[in-house]
Amino acid sequence: MERFTNIDRLSLNQITTNSWSLREAAEGCVRAEIPWIALWRNKVEEAGLAESKRIVRDAGLKVSSLCRGGMFPAATAAERAARIDDNRRAIDEAAELEAEVLVLVCGPAPDRDIDGARQMVEDAIHELVPYAQERGVTLGIEPLHPMYAAERSVISTLAQATTIAERFTPQQVGVVVDVFHVWWDPELYKQIARASGRILGFHVSDWIVPTPDMLLGRGMMGDGVIELNRIRQAVEAAGYRGPIEVEIFNQAIWDRPGDEVLAEMKARYLEHV
Amino acid sequence: MERFTNIDRLSLNQITTNSWSLREAAEGCVRAEIPWIALWRNKVEEAGLAESKRIVRDAGLKVSSLCRGGMFPAATAAERAARIDDNRRAIDEAAELEAEVLVLVCGPAPDRDIDGARQMVEDAIHELVPYAQERGVTLGIEPLHPMYAAERSVISTLAQATTIAERFTPQQVGVVVDVFHVWWDPELYKQIARASGRILGFHVSDWIVPTPDMLLGRGMMGDGVIELNRIRQAVEAAGYRGPIEVEIFNQAIWDRPGDEVLAEMKARYLEHV
Repeated sequence: MERFTNIDRLSLNQITTNSWSLREAAEGCVRAEIPWIALWRNKVEEAGLAESKRIVRDAGLKVSSLCRGGMFPAATAAERAARIDDNRRAIDEAAELEAEVLVLVCGPAPDRDIDGARQMVEDAIHELVPYAQERGVTLGIEPLHPMYAAERSVISTLAQATTIAERFTPQQVGVVVDVFHVWWDPELYKQIARASGRILGFHVSDWIVPTPDMLLGRGMMGDGVIELNRIRQAVEAAGYRGPIEVEIFNQAIWDRPGDEVLAEMKARYLEHV
Repeated sequence: MERFTNIDRLSLNQITTNSWSLREAAEGCVRAEIPWIALWRNKVEEAGLAESKRIVRDAGLKVSSLCRGGMFPAATAAERAARIDDNRRAIDEAAELEAEVLVLVCGPAPDRDIDGARQMVEDAIHELVPYAQERGVTLGIEPLHPMYAAERSVISTLAQATTIAERFTPQQVGVVVDVFHVWWDPELYKQIARASGRILGFHVSDWIVPTPDMLLGRGMMGDGVIELNRIRQAVEAAGYRGPIEVEIFNQAIWDRPGDEVLAEMKARYLEHV
């Protein structure tokens, strides 16, 4: 199947070069001529919001997403309210940085009640939508791999994420498809088609075998078993033509020189995505 | 919700006491008055099939399942045929040991084509059913957690397993529900209800947080976040009243004295399942 012939849609998700500061990542993208960047809130905080905005603008980069809002379920009403407040700050930051989407990693249950936690996620998104809309920020629900259900997200499938998103307009809430999280799903292609018009982001990496680590075991595109090009074609058939983020949690990649990682990332993107 | 007041349905899955031989496990069950045991083929082979049968019979144990058949997808027709042959031997062993069910762990794809591998699984089960039926052996498809999709099973959800099982009679093919593999599934209770009359086994353990290891990170019931009793009630509402296997892959538990593990397992079963 057809591969890309340029990197116009390629975005560096900052986590892939986690040892770099925001300024270093922006400069790396300029050297590598990568047009998009996805920012992480901790890196933005480190540099300062105004300075982060200046760095990105001066580098001529577009911001594909801000990572991340979410983490909604909590044991008490007070703690849930504190998390809503933090998400309002994330929305403000996404607006200021002109990010295409604020990615939501929805959070685990505070106890054994997974259905209750899923309800808390829905309630929180309902509460945030007016605030986000006023600031022109779209919320992107990212389903996480089921192996993170107990520690990071009770939203584990694209079907779940789309069901929540469908309660809102596509300008308010959509979904983010990350191949690492969804590649195994027997419903994947059906659910991508269902999410048509609601896909706000597409993240690539690979699932390596054997998997070295649950959190830091993601691979560079082409090093694993994910049908990257097939999923990309499906996402495009569902109307998504936006930036494609390379988002890799992997200590071995973090330990390599950033410029080398970016060079490999570009080559693998053209070859495999 | 109601808990058990006796251990009539409790079964020791041999992997939980992986450092024990079949004879040691059988003797351990007798000492602990556990009425059921689930056998692993490697342990049966170690003791010899006839001797294994004798040990189990002399101990007065019932065999809840034989673990495991499956591993169907392969790159070549010759290799797929070899695996079918191996599954025929597994069926013979299950018949000889009078196991209630032969558990199928269906296997990973030999390449990136996960749909193709899923088709190979279906084709292989079709091929095996007449052989199993002649020998009075029922095949139980066990969906494995999606984190094992690349290394152990392309059958990742109860929905998938039930869809395959429904092509056969309940006497030929059913499903095995293991809480560790399915607890995260937003469709879980709907799919358990759908599998009504087709559930051939119920396995318990727990999902501990943080998860220490992808393979050997299962916990003892009560040590994690799984709603064990809720799932048990759902499985019973779907008609399952058979043995309940405790199946724990965990090095720390394997390193403990088996009798101690069995005592704890009994207590936790009564308290949490």
